[in-house]
Amino acid sequence: MSWGRAMPDRPVVAVAGATGAVGREMLAVLEQRAFPAARVLALASARSAGRTLPYAGGRLTVEEMTGESFADVDVALFSAGAGISRQFREAVTSAGCVMIDNSSAFRMDDDVPLVVPEVNAAELARHCGVIANPNCSTIQMVVVLDVLRRLAPITRVVVSTYQAASGAGQAAMDELHGQTRDLLDGRDLTPSAFAHRIAFNCIPQIDVFLDDGSTKEEWKMVVETRKIMGEPGMAVAVTCVRVPVLRCHSEALAVEFAGPVSVEDAARALNEATGVTLLDDPVSQTYPMPAMLEGTDDCYVGRLRADVSVPHGLQMWVVADQLRKGAALNAVQIAEALLGR
Amino acid sequence: MSWGRAMPDRPVVAVAGATGAVGREMLAVLEQRAFPAARVLALASARSAGRTLPYAGGRLTVEEMTGESFADVDVALFSAGAGISRQFREAVTSAGCVMIDNSSAFRMDDDVPLVVPEVNAAELARHCGVIANPNCSTIQMVVVLDVLRRLAPITRVVVSTYQAASGAGQAAMDELHGQTRDLLDGRDLTPSAFAHRIAFNCIPQIDVFLDDGSTKEEWKMVVETRKIMGEPGMAVAVTCVRVPVLRCHSEALAVEFAGPVSVEDAARALNEATGVTLLDDPVSQTYPMPAMLEGTDDCYVGRLRADVSVPHGLQMWVVADQLRKGAALNAVQIAEALLGR
Repeated sequence: MSWGRAMPDRPVVAVAGATGAVGREMLAVLEQRAFPAARVLALASARSAGRTLPYAGGRLTVEEMTGESFADVDVALFSAGAGISRQFREAVTSAGCVMIDNSSAFRMDDDVPLVVPEVNAAELARHCGVIANPNCSTIQMVVVLDVLRRLAPITRVVVSTYQAASGAGQAAMDELHGQTRDLLDGRDLTPSAFAHRIAFNCIPQIDVFLDDGSTKEEWKMVVETRKIMGEPGMAVAVTCVRVPVLRCHSEALAVEFAGPVSVEDAARALNEATGVTLLDDPVSQTYPMPAMLEGTDDCYVGRLRADVSVPHGLQMWVVADQLRKGAALNAVQIAEALLGR
Repeated sequence: MSWGRAMPDRPVVAVAGATGAVGREMLAVLEQRAFPAARVLALASARSAGRTLPYAGGRLTVEEMTGESFADVDVALFSAGAGISRQFREAVTSAGCVMIDNSSAFRMDDDVPLVVPEVNAAELARHCGVIANPNCSTIQMVVVLDVLRRLAPITRVVVSTYQAASGAGQAAMDELHGQTRDLLDGRDLTPSAFAHRIAFNCIPQIDVFLDDGSTKEEWKMVVETRKIMGEPGMAVAVTCVRVPVLRCHSEALAVEFAGPVSVEDAARALNEATGVTLLDDPVSQTYPMPAMLEGTDDCYVGRLRADVSVPHGLQMWVVADQLRKGAALNAVQIAEALLGR
């Protein structure tokens, strides 16, 4: 089975969860990329209905999302949490609307393509109404790994993340700022969006714990990477850590290959790749940093060097804006790829 | 050749660089551990002479450090930078005083033991007047690795660090605080202690770059780990990153072994080890975090779990106070070990 209905050239687009950090970024990306929408709907919970959001020089009035919201919609970008995505899946797809879902609800379902357009846009051909947008920290890693595996097969990846507050939503970004000020001013702190204080701290837990001692975020980076790259046995070791940074995720990668890959060849391949920018000049102390890349679209790579602790290894540092390539931009790129089919 | 002179039971101690972040912590550690000093001298540059520092309920007057400062001193704890250590080495040792040096000046010299007492206190027997205190991020890693290698030989370690501002000194700690407030208040920022803005950022560079694309901090973690552990061929892959945290370093470790090591056995060994505290309870979201461990002495381990991406692997998260075990405490522990000989 696959989706019979073709996407019109100028589709009606809905953003579900439009008032959230990712939802608002989705509207910004649609506008900035001049997505050829016939119309854009901003959907959210009843609580947010009636609010207005900026779009294309005007304001969109937020509508309450109901089962009837999708009657005339061609593509719906969902970022309202896994529960909401599950709740509305049937209403969306039975209306003939394609759901591009930023939540983790359907990512590992066999009939749901998990897509990073630079890596596996071909997967879109087999969708049945739902396409999943991967986890933010997974996206920026696979964009880079996909370029590198063209040079030699990848045998293992060890990755440590330095993840921004934005991955936990707008409230978490606000908490980072407010809590930091409270701390500097000597006021008492009461963590809410995070389990622990995030100001001037690192929290080595993102999402819930699984029985094997890993977190769900770490598990996602393993299983989603395998699915997107089409390498079900790929060895991936992950540690996910929240750091007091606003909206770009950073990752330290140690990549092992089946054969030799020179730093020069890797740099050339990354330089030529779509969606990747190499920012790597030790002499001028140039490398990607999360605070300097807010609002950018590419996956930025720096600190590229040989890893001589294995026969064939490279180490690098990858930064991307969690709200852009890690979420909103990738979802819009999927919608663009559907248009182009 | 080795050092002929025995350490008196109640030695005269000098702290060289007493006004710095590590120097002041050295004084605090000497006091807190009731180090049996006959007398403690606070030495610093002419600029700081005459200042007073708290010690043992009173105040020490800072004296200008000169070649004559060490005439009656038995042990000098140096933390004034590699240049100062090189400049004063001859004056210190020719006065019959043992130099315990926190700088990187002599760490890799063949005739200088590089000591973490929990790991290689026996090395102290061969000192010739100078003993080097290792790099902060190295110390907390080798304390843990030394415990684990008793279970099976370690074949490789991949480590990513999350290093605090304190590693760059008091001015860097002040810069983190002041710059964060400036940023929240919308004022212009001018980085000084760091090459780039540190507030709400991660800087993937610590110390200078080497020709192979690694930083000197990363190189230190490789070569110092090998020297301390007495394993010259040990495979270690390192990425060192500065994060906006005040004074505890964190490290994500992926450790590979030559044979099976269960999580249970590793946890038991770490629990029983001197200088290590296991803080690891996913159910209660308990794990080491840098903001919560300021002023502590142990190396804290959490997030201990199997790494199934290799035949025999463990992953973990290690946090220690950079100014305590990473610097001042380890130096004082070396002095205590000399007393005990």
